[in-house]
Amino acid sequence: MKDLDYFFNPKSIAVIGASRHAKKFGYIILENLIDNEYAGKVYPVNPKADYILGKKCYSSVSKIPGSVDLAVIVVPAKNTPEVIRDCARKNVKAAIIISGGFGEAGNKKLEEEVMEAKGKMRIIGPNVIGIYDAYSKVDTIFSPNYRQKRPEKGAIGFISQSGAFGAAVLDWAATQSIGVSKFISIGNRIDVDEVDLLRYLANDRETKAIAVYLEGAKRGRELYNMLRHVVRKKPVVFLKAGKSTEARAAISSHTGSLAGESEIYVGMCEQAGAICVKSSEKLIDLANALAHQPLPKGDCIQVVTNGGGFGVLATDSVVSYGMKMAKLDRRTIDKIKSSVPAYASVSNPMDLVGDADAERYKIALDAVLKDRNVSGVIVILLMQISALESNVVNILVSLKKKYDKPLLVCTTGGEFTNMHARMLEKEGIPTYSSPKRAASAMKALVDYSKTKKMLPI
Amino acid sequence: MKDLDYFFNPKSIAVIGASRHAKKFGYIILENLIDNEYAGKVYPVNPKADYILGKKCYSSVSKIPGSVDLAVIVVPAKNTPEVIRDCARKNVKAAIIISGGFGEAGNKKLEEEVMEAKGKMRIIGPNVIGIYDAYSKVDTIFSPNYRQKRPEKGAIGFISQSGAFGAAVLDWAATQSIGVSKFISIGNRIDVDEVDLLRYLANDRETKAIAVYLEGAKRGRELYNMLRHVVRKKPVVFLKAGKSTEARAAISSHTGSLAGESEIYVGMCEQAGAICVKSSEKLIDLANALAHQPLPKGDCIQVVTNGGGFGVLATDSVVSYGMKMAKLDRRTIDKIKSSVPAYASVSNPMDLVGDADAERYKIALDAVLKDRNVSGVIVILLMQISALESNVVNILVSLKKKYDKPLLVCTTGGEFTNMHARMLEKEGIPTYSSPKRAASAMKALVDYSKTKKMLPI
Repeated sequence: MKDLDYFFNPKSIAVIGASRHAKKFGYIILENLIDNEYAGKVYPVNPKADYILGKKCYSSVSKIPGSVDLAVIVVPAKNTPEVIRDCARKNVKAAIIISGGFGEAGNKKLEEEVMEAKGKMRIIGPNVIGIYDAYSKVDTIFSPNYRQKRPEKGAIGFISQSGAFGAAVLDWAATQSIGVSKFISIGNRIDVDEVDLLRYLANDRETKAIAVYLEGAKRGRELYNMLRHVVRKKPVVFLKAGKSTEARAAISSHTGSLAGESEIYVGMCEQAGAICVKSSEKLIDLANALAHQPLPKGDCIQVVTNGGGFGVLATDSVVSYGMKMAKLDRRTIDKIKSSVPAYASVSNPMDLVGDADAERYKIALDAVLKDRNVSGVIVILLMQISALESNVVNILVSLKKKYDKPLLVCTTGGEFTNMHARMLEKEGIPTYSSPKRAASAMKALVDYSKTKKMLPI
Repeated sequence: MKDLDYFFNPKSIAVIGASRHAKKFGYIILENLIDNEYAGKVYPVNPKADYILGKKCYSSVSKIPGSVDLAVIVVPAKNTPEVIRDCARKNVKAAIIISGGFGEAGNKKLEEEVMEAKGKMRIIGPNVIGIYDAYSKVDTIFSPNYRQKRPEKGAIGFISQSGAFGAAVLDWAATQSIGVSKFISIGNRIDVDEVDLLRYLANDRETKAIAVYLEGAKRGRELYNMLRHVVRKKPVVFLKAGKSTEARAAISSHTGSLAGESEIYVGMCEQAGAICVKSSEKLIDLANALAHQPLPKGDCIQVVTNGGGFGVLATDSVVSYGMKMAKLDRRTIDKIKSSVPAYASVSNPMDLVGDADAERYKIALDAVLKDRNVSGVIVILLMQISALESNVVNILVSLKKKYDKPLLVCTTGGEFTNMHARMLEKEGIPTYSSPKRAASAMKALVDYSKTKKMLPI
């Protein structure tokens, strides 16, 4: 087992600073590990308690009878070096220091003490929410389930320097039925940093695309080299916060790190082949497409819709992102025209009109996906004034399996619409709430496809 | 009663082409008028039925015993001129022609016949979903309630050239608890157009901001003059679809209208004082802020957060939209510092840190809103790893009442988060899912505030 594996697949976890009080982090973390299906052993450590949540408590990590792979540490900052020393003596393999009050609060000295005490142990943190692994169910995020939904097993690996950012985005993704493989908040990253984790996720079988939120790099050159290495295998989407001077001042009080000049980072990451974005929504929008869809061979996009207005908006977005509207082969057009009503507009955008049912979409999409002039398809599904029934989901899923071309969906609306969006997401068909978002995700597929062609293997 | 009033406040409505078949438009419209609390009289017209949905049917509009203010017409296009003639004889005041198959399908002639037959009657359509009035409950949108939620009573007036676009956006808005005053889809607009409706909404008491989706103007100069007139009273947000040549070709088959050069329109609308946007989400995001929040006196924005990462992103967005980060008065800083923990970052962005409760927000926001250096505040509420309870909603509502400064919220997440977002929306505090969207809405307030200062009354 490689060292970082102990974070994601530990056989046993000690929660040091476990608490009896339901609002304390040391309680919530223990509760989540017990309730959310983590299968390994869980040991609460608290010298003042006998049992917490039905689990026997230990006064220190050294008193735990079995071996401990991972320690989750929620004691006050000043007690952390001592706890780390205990862990090192116990031969704990990895530790996540949740607690704040270190470098971000001016206490760099404490961080040095921790580093001196840790021995060979690897450390994530301090000042983090830690890890969420959707497969092993290691979950150190100290939010109760009612406040934050956890994503299902998925294909996005997500690294975030900010814990609260990570938790909010995970919660959003989970509610959209977008899965993740692993999430890691890196906080003050005195040991494990984004470079280590990029390497790890590059080799992680479940991770198909990587999303990174970063305020400043710790090791610029290593990050660049690692990105160049990783993007040969997997796409990386990168959100660098702190473009403005005003924001950079805030960063140092947040994770105690120096934020570099944003333009330099972004330029560096793009040169390395990563896809840089500027908003929280785009980070997951793009990673989601890259994790689930095949890469297009070109940049000729077909739009198929049941509402004219959205077709027009999607066309504007495709063009404004620098892609081309596909020109369908004459035979494709003839084939579709022979099977759909005369008032449908068999062109690009293709407006199948409000009375289109799933069968009409099937006829149109089957022909369009077969057309050599089409690199990828944006399907707009409007469920309001529409003859579409839920079986349109089945049709898209079987077309996704049949053709090796990207298929992204745009659908806007309320509960009925969102129910279908979630069904599609579960089947690996990324679904966006506006034409612009769908086009932006398609552009990421086009860009990464070009990057892969250019890079030597 | 002015002529357009008959569309929104009719005492009686005839549904001409009412149907017994649950999937037909003529059934759904009748059902919605009956079920969704429209208080006036409703008359189904269908020569082949005696009763539909428990209502007595009439063989033609002339057979209806009482007077008819509004006719909703869902008969085939070719029968429409005759129906319009009947309506004119019956002294019907207004008609909405839902049916398609007119100019957009190459049948301009039919439109001319309708115009000849109508007399003094005003007509919306053809090729529309018509009207939704949240106050009078006139609702001619032919989507069943299970597919499309209707917005509550609100302050946004919404004109859409595309019906499906309008339905999808209304459904989305309703699900976010964003209300509207009136919605009108104008389709082929052979009579009533966006210029008429802008004038009407400018004088509508319930409408505080106007959102317009347009593919092409019918009367460019009149639109410009009307916008100049309207923006003195109310803000107008404008989404012009069809920027690209490819999109403009699609427009003519959609609503049978010629799409003008987008740059010219956008330039014209901006010159007239409207706020132009490029995406469906932004259209309502901005109208929502403009409808509910006071205008800022300047462009100095304060960000208050309980998560550092989102504070950084919000700062980036404020600066990138050309606004300034407010510099708090020394006394404001001292006052807040005396009441919040030392590890909170009392600056801009102000990070109250994850353990901030509603009371800490109250202390900070009260001081910040009082500060003369602050024009408006973006409040970030992260509900996941957070000590925030639902009473933060109360606190924001009372601060909104106490101060005459814009207060916008950003919160990202899943169900627990969205529940609070909906509570805030209902209280007139626009709430956005990303810092960028919140900043963009704040920018609209700043822009409209400048526009109002520049315009002669």
